[in-house]
Amino acid sequence: MKSILQNLLLLFFATISYAQTQKPKIISPEILEDHSVVFRLHAPEANSVGIRGTMNPNFDLIPLVKNDQGIFEVTLGPFESDMYVYTFNVDGVTTVDPSNNVVIRDGSYIESRLFIPGGLTEIYDVKEVPHGKVSTVWYPAKTLDMTRRLTIYTPPGYDQSKKSYPVLYLLHGAGGDEEAWISRGRANYILDNLIAENKVEPMIVVIPNGNFRATSAPGETNLALKLEQDSAVLGAPTSMTGEIIPTSIIEDLIPYVEANYRVKANKENRALAGLSMGGYQTQMTTNLNPNTFDYIGVMSMGLYDMFGNYDEQKHISQIKAIQKANPKLYWIGCGKTDFLYESVVKLRAFYDQQGFNYTYRESEGGHSWNNWRLYLSELTPQLFK
Amino acid sequence: MKSILQNLLLLFFATISYAQTQKPKIISPEILEDHSVVFRLHAPEANSVGIRGTMNPNFDLIPLVKNDQGIFEVTLGPFESDMYVYTFNVDGVTTVDPSNNVVIRDGSYIESRLFIPGGLTEIYDVKEVPHGKVSTVWYPAKTLDMTRRLTIYTPPGYDQSKKSYPVLYLLHGAGGDEEAWISRGRANYILDNLIAENKVEPMIVVIPNGNFRATSAPGETNLALKLEQDSAVLGAPTSMTGEIIPTSIIEDLIPYVEANYRVKANKENRALAGLSMGGYQTQMTTNLNPNTFDYIGVMSMGLYDMFGNYDEQKHISQIKAIQKANPKLYWIGCGKTDFLYESVVKLRAFYDQQGFNYTYRESEGGHSWNNWRLYLSELTPQLFK
Repeated sequence: MKSILQNLLLLFFATISYAQTQKPKIISPEILEDHSVVFRLHAPEANSVGIRGTMNPNFDLIPLVKNDQGIFEVTLGPFESDMYVYTFNVDGVTTVDPSNNVVIRDGSYIESRLFIPGGLTEIYDVKEVPHGKVSTVWYPAKTLDMTRRLTIYTPPGYDQSKKSYPVLYLLHGAGGDEEAWISRGRANYILDNLIAENKVEPMIVVIPNGNFRATSAPGETNLALKLEQDSAVLGAPTSMTGEIIPTSIIEDLIPYVEANYRVKANKENRALAGLSMGGYQTQMTTNLNPNTFDYIGVMSMGLYDMFGNYDEQKHISQIKAIQKANPKLYWIGCGKTDFLYESVVKLRAFYDQQGFNYTYRESEGGHSWNNWRLYLSELTPQLFK
Repeated sequence: MKSILQNLLLLFFATISYAQTQKPKIISPEILEDHSVVFRLHAPEANSVGIRGTMNPNFDLIPLVKNDQGIFEVTLGPFESDMYVYTFNVDGVTTVDPSNNVVIRDGSYIESRLFIPGGLTEIYDVKEVPHGKVSTVWYPAKTLDMTRRLTIYTPPGYDQSKKSYPVLYLLHGAGGDEEAWISRGRANYILDNLIAENKVEPMIVVIPNGNFRATSAPGETNLALKLEQDSAVLGAPTSMTGEIIPTSIIEDLIPYVEANYRVKANKENRALAGLSMGGYQTQMTTNLNPNTFDYIGVMSMGLYDMFGNYDEQKHISQIKAIQKANPKLYWIGCGKTDFLYESVVKLRAFYDQQGFNYTYRESEGGHSWNNWRLYLSELTPQLFK
């Protein structure tokens, strides 16, 4: 049996791996016992190789050192157990690590993944617990005049049960799309694990695309590809759009979900949360629709007066309307080194001044998925209780 | 409103794109009117840049030429309208195209996508037709002693209807996993489009992971990551395994699907098809279980006597048993330049000798997703009729 296996492996290897033949075995990243990590790249013809990654929050380019076999290597860390992303820089060109077959795209950014087991990864690793289902569906978005793609998590047991469920609408940041909260955020496994521990109410999680010009993540349609290539050239995806996305959430998204899934279609059973651009969209949506959501989560986004045409009087009246609607939770989370930290200080000062109640969570770290996964794991236990 | 947008784009750009600042606008790939394609890479410090891709079936490394702004460039083609993948080689290191935000992983291979609209892409592009739902679920695979992930396509209307559906079990090749028939194969859009044209019976498509040691595609669990890193080092994924995968299909997969979805649970409404390694697994599964599937599709895989311990007498008796079970379709497809073409010639000669009926489709091209997408679009209209 072994020879069958070996022969076939050889056979396929010869054909499939046209790009990777005759190279030495390279293991990268190699995680050492103390959670230091060795990064390696076989590049005998290259002059310089560097690495950048989210495990080094200042994003410095750190050089790898070349040995006499043409292998560049560096040992970094130790790092805290968690999931990070990194890229190599080969003679000035940003690349993924060819020895690492896990890449994660976040909007326009394609990076290799580093997973250091233990610690925080326990929140979102795949465990022997019942798993929910993650689906992608296309839905009509009349206010945007397009059919769009969304990701939806239905909790374990949804298909077998006749129950109705509460819904968390979960928004990504600039640079992301309807895949980000699953691929980088691992929202499905966070929910699976917390539901299994009875810490979280079984809920549906709906993840739309927050870029108003896009129908979907890049790669689905040629149209999406073109739009996202435009935005890659611009430097960031499309959508800081005032009322466009909030309108589509209220008029397109929620009606679609409530017509097609077994949901508890009322304020008490609707939550809206988002990170960064999605935090802004969360604020805008709830400012404009104070009676729609009883649970509101704003991650890594503060007062949006930085955007030029801020109208404080309007904001005050909107906040008063939310106050009157009396949501069960208005949650704000931010990291101490987040580049938007000062905007969050201002938002809290503004809310305090208005006598507006909110729950504030300040974490270590910055504007990162490491924080957003953590926030989701802390926010979801507070929903629908 | 524009200034809000611009400010925010700048704001996020500054933070998110730490790796991509201060570079000139590069458009790559740029598809010209005649379907020639310009590939570009800004790499002033690099000595040599090449490109390899499936649009050049011999996989030659073609050099890009550097201009005085440090931009490497080459114009290739014209190519037929279709989807291809390619990588750059920067001073000897294989990497994706940093200007192209669509990468597709196929097992261990991470490549940039080239999509040339028109022609064959009409089969699998996203159109304004009703869309099915693509879900990932975890299911118990007792014969493998693990919980595994699969991808399932349910056709448009499945959730609203009370009908039961036929099922196509669809197997990927060595190098792939439960994501490949969606990401590279675009099976969901092929089905959506053909169902909309009334050419294909609405059906469920189940795509398991054919690597018996893997629980899932890399990136889901740390375990899957480690297994796939092993196999990346080996040079190809794990599973040419005789009876292991066939047993799991029969004893784990089909019972799970039939217990959890509204399916017509009989031979007349079961199809099994696979490409390459999955074609081998399709042959093994149906040889061992002649009464389970009425529709059998073998893509790009022939007689497996090349694997060493081939037993012709056993094969003859297995084929006689299938003959007796009288399946409605036994379909074989292969490209003229497929490296397994000769094995398909031998398989057909063997079947002819046994008086065993099959349908044969010979296409241009080789062992490629371009062919497998085409085959799926031609095979599915013949199922469940």
